[in-house]
Amino acid sequence: MSSSAALDDLIDALCCLPGIGRKSAQRMALYLIDRNREGALAIAQSISSALDKVGHCERCRNFSDAAHCQICENAKRQDGLLCVVETPADVMAIEASGSFQGKYFVLLGKLSPIDGIGPDDLGFDLLQQRLESEPIDEIILATNPTVEGDITAQYIADLAARYQIKTSRIAHGVPLGGELEYVDSGTLARALNARQLFS
Amino acid sequence: MSSSAALDDLIDALCCLPGIGRKSAQRMALYLIDRNREGALAIAQSISSALDKVGHCERCRNFSDAAHCQICENAKRQDGLLCVVETPADVMAIEASGSFQGKYFVLLGKLSPIDGIGPDDLGFDLLQQRLESEPIDEIILATNPTVEGDITAQYIADLAARYQIKTSRIAHGVPLGGELEYVDSGTLARALNARQLFS
Repeated sequence: MSSSAALDDLIDALCCLPGIGRKSAQRMALYLIDRNREGALAIAQSISSALDKVGHCERCRNFSDAAHCQICENAKRQDGLLCVVETPADVMAIEASGSFQGKYFVLLGKLSPIDGIGPDDLGFDLLQQRLESEPIDEIILATNPTVEGDITAQYIADLAARYQIKTSRIAHGVPLGGELEYVDSGTLARALNARQLFS
Repeated sequence: MSSSAALDDLIDALCCLPGIGRKSAQRMALYLIDRNREGALAIAQSISSALDKVGHCERCRNFSDAAHCQICENAKRQDGLLCVVETPADVMAIEASGSFQGKYFVLLGKLSPIDGIGPDDLGFDLLQQRLESEPIDEIILATNPTVEGDITAQYIADLAARYQIKTSRIAHGVPLGGELEYVDSGTLARALNARQLFS
């Protein structure tokens, strides 16, 4: 409890942020009110604006301010290459790598019968429409290397096979800078199985 | 860069929070927009409300929604005991300990000639007014145990001496749960010097 009810409310509200406990929330609230009121205003305004504007792209299901997102609307990107990912955060990670110039499809989840998440929840009908109507040459399956992610990838590969579209899976193995000693055995087994000829 | 400008703006704004880098800001933004829109709205509203309402108490300089803060207005707290601290966060820490039932005076800083912070910036005129007009029996000096904090405490002790008011300094020593082996030598020296008779 501080000496101000409004400040207490702000601390309570900030506690909902992921990875932020009461102590950090208090530090943030004091910082915002004491030392960076401009930044505080920017946060309040951008949250309101994002809540108001951000929805999902009708083509790829990624976050978007308009009916179609900035990536789908970008004419410079290849239409023939479609990368399927689980979440918008995955799109950001791939975009940050700067090594993909195609389009995306965001599942917003993964097949998980135990949680009641089936093909209907992941927009497979929308994906199928795109496979039917768009000139897609290759689908890159970039779901996570988990049991559910692998099953989801397999499901999409089966779907693509019906339309004679080539599918590929992103490589899994030892990460750059990783030391073999500290890599888990599952990853190491996959890296050995997927070994490539050294030229 | 995400697929939504409003989302990018939100990530940029969240980066200003202390201890939050771009990656954490992105995680927070996605969480707020994707999974906790209610929480997001609460944050935006409580920031606006706090920016609007929170000012400083005219008596103790702590944060307050009104002219006088909740602690100064609390009739159950002792008027005779005044605890002087550097920041509102210090007040929160002491309140959380539950072991102080007096009133506070918040300096909002500490004497630091090198940064150009003198007595005028720390509200010493206001403190002096209170020493003159209020029935204060004891001043507890709870500034931080740093060079500046110690000098500030000394300055206030000199001020209080003019009004024949007793002053005390919070104890400094080995923290509870701390192991001697890992306590710095300055703290240990202070703990030895300030040893008390074991009864």
